[in-house]
Amino acid sequence: MRPRPELERLAAALQGNELAALLVLGSSAREPDLAALLGPVHVHECFVLARADGETHLGFLSPMEREEAAASGLALLSPERLQVAKWSRACGGEGESLAAIVEQGLAESGLAPPGRLGVAGRPPLGQAVVVTERLRAAGWYLVPSGNLLRSWRREKSEWMVEEARRAAQGVEAAMRRIARALAAAVDRDGELWLEEERLTVGRLRREVARAVAEVGLDQPEGNILAPGREGAVPHNAGRDASVVRAGESLIVDLYPRSTLFADCTRTFCVGEPPAALREAHALVRQALALARRELRVGISGWELQQRVCELFEAEGYRTPVSHPGAVSGYVHGLGHGVGFELHEIPSFREEAGEDGVLRAGDLLTLEPGLYDPEAGFGVRLEDLVYLGAHGHSLLTRLPYDLDPRAWAADE
Amino acid sequence: MRPRPELERLAAALQGNELAALLVLGSSAREPDLAALLGPVHVHECFVLARADGETHLGFLSPMEREEAAASGLALLSPERLQVAKWSRACGGEGESLAAIVEQGLAESGLAPPGRLGVAGRPPLGQAVVVTERLRAAGWYLVPSGNLLRSWRREKSEWMVEEARRAAQGVEAAMRRIARALAAAVDRDGELWLEEERLTVGRLRREVARAVAEVGLDQPEGNILAPGREGAVPHNAGRDASVVRAGESLIVDLYPRSTLFADCTRTFCVGEPPAALREAHALVRQALALARRELRVGISGWELQQRVCELFEAEGYRTPVSHPGAVSGYVHGLGHGVGFELHEIPSFREEAGEDGVLRAGDLLTLEPGLYDPEAGFGVRLEDLVYLGAHGHSLLTRLPYDLDPRAWAADE
Repeated sequence: MRPRPELERLAAALQGNELAALLVLGSSAREPDLAALLGPVHVHECFVLARADGETHLGFLSPMEREEAAASGLALLSPERLQVAKWSRACGGEGESLAAIVEQGLAESGLAPPGRLGVAGRPPLGQAVVVTERLRAAGWYLVPSGNLLRSWRREKSEWMVEEARRAAQGVEAAMRRIARALAAAVDRDGELWLEEERLTVGRLRREVARAVAEVGLDQPEGNILAPGREGAVPHNAGRDASVVRAGESLIVDLYPRSTLFADCTRTFCVGEPPAALREAHALVRQALALARRELRVGISGWELQQRVCELFEAEGYRTPVSHPGAVSGYVHGLGHGVGFELHEIPSFREEAGEDGVLRAGDLLTLEPGLYDPEAGFGVRLEDLVYLGAHGHSLLTRLPYDLDPRAWAADE
Repeated sequence: MRPRPELERLAAALQGNELAALLVLGSSAREPDLAALLGPVHVHECFVLARADGETHLGFLSPMEREEAAASGLALLSPERLQVAKWSRACGGEGESLAAIVEQGLAESGLAPPGRLGVAGRPPLGQAVVVTERLRAAGWYLVPSGNLLRSWRREKSEWMVEEARRAAQGVEAAMRRIARALAAAVDRDGELWLEEERLTVGRLRREVARAVAEVGLDQPEGNILAPGREGAVPHNAGRDASVVRAGESLIVDLYPRSTLFADCTRTFCVGEPPAALREAHALVRQALALARRELRVGISGWELQQRVCELFEAEGYRTPVSHPGAVSGYVHGLGHGVGFELHEIPSFREEAGEDGVLRAGDLLTLEPGLYDPEAGFGVRLEDLVYLGAHGHSLLTRLPYDLDPRAWAADE
């Protein structure tokens, strides 16, 4: 069983918000709010009732999921105790049986209205309106608690860091495959060829898919494999049909998921890079090193962003500080928290307040980049780091070289 | 652009339920309610407003998703028209900016309260309670409409069948890889070995992961690869560490997703099968053929289940009709609808009513099986079929043989 110190923190958060309990409703243990409470288990229709005194119950609706439910380590409200069969027979309209089952769960957990009940999760909206109406009629005051859970999810327990590390290992394997394919490619009149075919983004994307699937990860948010001009716009994912060309940049940004996400970017160039690309790459590498040097508990993401902008501006590049809205130069934020969702707290925005001050327990990315849509290149380097009380550890241990042939020396 | 006859059917359904419009809220175009409305596009925070007169709008919150939103073919409510930036600045509490944005979207779509507004989708519950409270206060009567959408999603348009076919092709590729691996394995004292390693379920699962990832599918619900005793319990997924043995059954049940799911099962045995396994397999194959012969518009899933039970009972096996709750023999339903969720309407349950009477446009599985936990084997054969007005077509075209070596002849 995983140790679950995070459940004690949750109880404290509920007390701090004067909630009697928190109800998290959902359809899959993979949903972010439920995954943080349940861990890597396979449970579908279910709800979690976390009481402010720390007692946390998992109600599950299918008897076949008994063993998976037990693996969560939570106290169980079985379908029998919830009288799922009875309520399913008795209740006709949409959401009505779920409302009765949730009320049964509250009673079985020793929770009686009136009181303040936090609500979170992602149940179907049609059912949600019926369940919430019933709970209010029974005397519960419902408190939207998605933000409370997001803040609670911020601090990563050991098992969560291990799950992120597992995802990061998948990234490493995939990125090294990309490097090997690029290193093996040959230049024919500017286009790269591999095994008698043009080397396309689609081919590289299949390599990534295989690598992450082999270690049991999925890619619910896809990935970015953006060559040349496509990579010059940060959120362009890259088209499968695009052919990778010699002397062009190729941005590879991968973010697969175990129970948690990992997130990592490298930029490649096969053959001789143009001087502007080589210089941008060297500077982005400096910026990433600077951000890692400055990274510590108590600094804000926005302060790190400012340090990086100063470096870029000193070398003559535009930044979001000097030229807000510019599309060339450094055009985005420095990083973001990572967890059960790809983008979590901490935030690197200027207006983030407490959500932006880095703490021990944060899992976050650092991802400086430089883009030039006119010259048709983009560079981004991104690492995933865990910030502990006494320094940080790097979860994505990969070379930074533009030249994929330089990666082989590191293997 | 995909032809969208389903949107006209939706308008008729809204009119039939006296709804002014339907609001579908969600966080990803991959959610079932949104996927059916949007098709295979990559849009995150968004909502669909379908008016009863057939005008259907997509509101999206990120300016970067403009092109993907346009690919849906729906009329667009852009972040600018929805004043996303303004509401995000002005509204602090959880769900408040979303509530303002949705109200803006209703106004931009020419929808004014009072009136009946259907609601569906899967927004975060904390935000949902705020949005629904605001809509009610404005004069909307909210009608839970998840069931309406489920019924609407039942009839598959041509593009949906094509997406399911794409998923089925991934199943075929994966299943043939399994057959090839099994055919190449050698028997050492009962255990199967491949390439100097014991052939484990985990190894076969990696083959499946690679095959489906290569064609761009995911497996959000996992899969079943259950040898011997594990396969004797229908919902046992099979442990990665289990070694496949000669003379044992191996149930392979795959259900990857493109935009829609496919679902298909075969059962293998390497080496000489015990007589009871061979007989059960032959009878399950007969049962599947019988179900396909009887399949037609107007028959109910339950009637098909009864025909199959009669066949099994005549040969001395228990069934859910003769022995409800039995764990050996035929112990489950004959099939289920498939679509944007793995299990959809039509239903094969006795109490299904209209949801159980098969119609033209249904996409469904047929999956008879026989199980013997004491003898330690299970057999299941499952095909995915599309039921048209003039007969059905098979989406999963694969051999049924127990012996994987027999599969090679078919390639």
